[in-house]
Amino acid sequence: MAKRDEKAITSRSDDYSQWYQDIVLRAELADYSPVKGCMVIRPGGYALWENMQKALDGMFKATGHVNAYFPIFIPESFLKKEAQHVEGFSPELAVVTHAGGKELEEPLVVRPTSETIMYAMYSKWIKSYRDLPLLINQWANVVRWEMRTRLFLRTTEFLWQEGHTVHATHDEAWEEVLRILDIYARFAEEWMAVPVLKGVKSDAEKFAGAKTTTCIEALMQDGKALQAGTSHDLGQNFSKAFDVRFQDDKAEWQYAWQTSWGVSTRLIGALIMAHSDDQGLVMPPRLAPIQAVIVPIYRDEASRQAITEVAAKLRGGLEEAGLSVRLDDRDTVSPGFKFNEWELKGVPVRIEIGPKDVEKGSCVLVPRVPTRALKEGERRQKEFVGLDEAPGVLKAFLDELQTALYNRALAFREAHSHQVDDYEAFKSAIDGGGFFWAHWCGGAECEARVKEETKATIRCLPFDAGQEAGRCFVCGGDSERRVVWARAY
Amino acid sequence: MAKRDEKAITSRSDDYSQWYQDIVLRAELADYSPVKGCMVIRPGGYALWENMQKALDGMFKATGHVNAYFPIFIPESFLKKEAQHVEGFSPELAVVTHAGGKELEEPLVVRPTSETIMYAMYSKWIKSYRDLPLLINQWANVVRWEMRTRLFLRTTEFLWQEGHTVHATHDEAWEEVLRILDIYARFAEEWMAVPVLKGVKSDAEKFAGAKTTTCIEALMQDGKALQAGTSHDLGQNFSKAFDVRFQDDKAEWQYAWQTSWGVSTRLIGALIMAHSDDQGLVMPPRLAPIQAVIVPIYRDEASRQAITEVAAKLRGGLEEAGLSVRLDDRDTVSPGFKFNEWELKGVPVRIEIGPKDVEKGSCVLVPRVPTRALKEGERRQKEFVGLDEAPGVLKAFLDELQTALYNRALAFREAHSHQVDDYEAFKSAIDGGGFFWAHWCGGAECEARVKEETKATIRCLPFDAGQEAGRCFVCGGDSERRVVWARAY
Repeated sequence: MAKRDEKAITSRSDDYSQWYQDIVLRAELADYSPVKGCMVIRPGGYALWENMQKALDGMFKATGHVNAYFPIFIPESFLKKEAQHVEGFSPELAVVTHAGGKELEEPLVVRPTSETIMYAMYSKWIKSYRDLPLLINQWANVVRWEMRTRLFLRTTEFLWQEGHTVHATHDEAWEEVLRILDIYARFAEEWMAVPVLKGVKSDAEKFAGAKTTTCIEALMQDGKALQAGTSHDLGQNFSKAFDVRFQDDKAEWQYAWQTSWGVSTRLIGALIMAHSDDQGLVMPPRLAPIQAVIVPIYRDEASRQAITEVAAKLRGGLEEAGLSVRLDDRDTVSPGFKFNEWELKGVPVRIEIGPKDVEKGSCVLVPRVPTRALKEGERRQKEFVGLDEAPGVLKAFLDELQTALYNRALAFREAHSHQVDDYEAFKSAIDGGGFFWAHWCGGAECEARVKEETKATIRCLPFDAGQEAGRCFVCGGDSERRVVWARAY
Repeated sequence: MAKRDEKAITSRSDDYSQWYQDIVLRAELADYSPVKGCMVIRPGGYALWENMQKALDGMFKATGHVNAYFPIFIPESFLKKEAQHVEGFSPELAVVTHAGGKELEEPLVVRPTSETIMYAMYSKWIKSYRDLPLLINQWANVVRWEMRTRLFLRTTEFLWQEGHTVHATHDEAWEEVLRILDIYARFAEEWMAVPVLKGVKSDAEKFAGAKTTTCIEALMQDGKALQAGTSHDLGQNFSKAFDVRFQDDKAEWQYAWQTSWGVSTRLIGALIMAHSDDQGLVMPPRLAPIQAVIVPIYRDEASRQAITEVAAKLRGGLEEAGLSVRLDDRDTVSPGFKFNEWELKGVPVRIEIGPKDVEKGSCVLVPRVPTRALKEGERRQKEFVGLDEAPGVLKAFLDELQTALYNRALAFREAHSHQVDDYEAFKSAIDGGGFFWAHWCGGAECEARVKEETKATIRCLPFDAGQEAGRCFVCGGDSERRVVWARAY
């Protein structure tokens, strides 16, 4: 690799992939670890994950879910009980063969997902329809041995939540699948400010062991899609493999209906790629660990003291108003250095206080991204605000910025969504990226051909696509609806 | 094992160890998993852990610590860099030898603790004294291959937090060690209602790789001690092994001073054993996931509706007051059944509402343990309370109960703390359990002899023991202070 200026962020147009890595490393969200494919989530990245967890966990609990914790180790034989499941996961497993100084009788797999170990317990716990629905979620680390890794997006170990629910009927299970998909979509759109398509995966793309996989799909700035969350209808596949049965109200034994669903630290990658720019990270205010940073501007020691005092008081007022604020009172670096650093780290609003501001009892709010125009290269918007009004104005600024980021991402997606009816036209357009809405006969062969020839996959059969008769853009066969194709992370 | 009534809880006097297991299983805090030595933390136990995490995490953050996440896998060679560390942990390691279908070039250890992987990163991140102190904590799962396991107290996999800090001077590092030990002690006493001794471990008992280990020690109802948290002064042992250095303000390179500290899901075991009784779990109100349960009492459908309506309104009022309340409106089981179940599950206060209560606009509060007398076998205390006053009275009840549990545990500890000067007297008293304050010459041989002959160990050299000249109760050598001996979990 060519030698680069360690301090500079590669521009997106020069090398999108390098730009992404620069942001993650320079904003100190994560770092490479000495273990191949495993990352270290640094405090800046972890604080973001904690905010994501808090929001999601609140939504799960509000819909009746409870958290639990199951072992990280799974006996190899458990994984083999569901045929598709083991086929899907076995190439990616990390295996403990020795422990306590001895070779184990049965190797233990480090969980790649917890269906098998959880359902072995469910089988023991569930006896009657009165025990249903069982609505359990787990926050945990999982391991999938990946060949090609990328910070947050695809790492050998990652953090996630996995919900695993049990129901008496398929209708109830399907309701749960959609309830969770709605939560994921709401979280992506309202918290991450990332618009998503909701839909169903094709059979080729569904979860190993699922009857149906639903998903949310987002579009990144380089025109590639990113699957941001999945919610699976497992049918009775696992309940039959693990004997998860219940006595119904007629005292007859029935196999249960199950769902599983998850989102992971991959969401951080999606957040970065959806909003950030060549200056650095851009964080949606609702998830930003630091929502505003106060930078005092002074020339001498006397003014430093006076200004820092006012700044500290301002911070107090903002924190009382429920905002998360940092006062950067370092005297070893210049204000300009601080501006750049906090821009790089994606803090949504910078608050400047200089000698004149102190005289006037005011400060200056500068959003990370101009909230009205939101066009890059434009002069940033500034607002002069009285110190007393600062909490109210800052809140309004953060709300505006949250909305502006969503709208910008939505506009980007709209501009990069195309209807295509001709496969050759698709092939020449796919390099430009985006979502391609095209008719598909439903055949696995056409799907495989497109993947082989263009690297694009069916991201989903969107729920709100509507019926529309047409012809498969590959084979010309009958089609009832358009599906969404894209290259994906 | 003899066949037992699955529904009955063994009494403490019959079999303390079986009693403990009955509580954990019957109160649905945890369960055995199919993987030897690994437990499943069920929703009831996990909610308790979440409350513990929230309280501790708040205290860590209030003292400037931030969270991060490091890989679960550690290259085997890393562990070997600090000689004592590898010696202490190697018998307990679980090792991944195969991944992604291939044998690994270097086996990966599943972290038993994260000093080595974290400090390899610290070495990369820290350059200047301006980067210090570095105050990082991690919430994670760890694995130590134990031969004899017991739910929560000793499991192959457990959940914990591990803090790892870096300082420019030894003084600062030692301050940090004590700051954290204070947080642990405050958490144990103010949240768990478990009194603890703070002190230093003997060399034989200290952490593998530490210069000094400090700890908090609690006394369980069977007279055995339980180490509830440790805070280690690592000196420069690891900074030299992992090259954690910084440039001081004279631009000279110095090895850093480090600390590490942790508490784990073992605390749940301590909480159970400190307070629970033959009826089941007793939870301190400040950590109880459900602080009060409302049980409506009715005879017919008409009164059921009227009472449940009042009960639901009451719950709303209590929740508005910031209390965590469950309304048990199941109509498949009797009130008596519910009473027993919630007692077993340790809910601090039961609220009964019957037809007469509805008429009078009142309800009855019944604490899990009588708050004044707190003697077992006594008739439980009841309070008739107007519905409007319920939030205030319930809060007062919970506070009283919190204090009462602490006082009861403290009285128990006082009653089971003994000064001994004669080794033979100690040997005949040790079966009765408790803390034994005895003089010790400081010699490893005397310590080893006591352990071999009595299974008792030095729990700590307590900080507030004071100087007192005496003679070692084993060898008669000079001693400057008493240390605390006990059999321990």
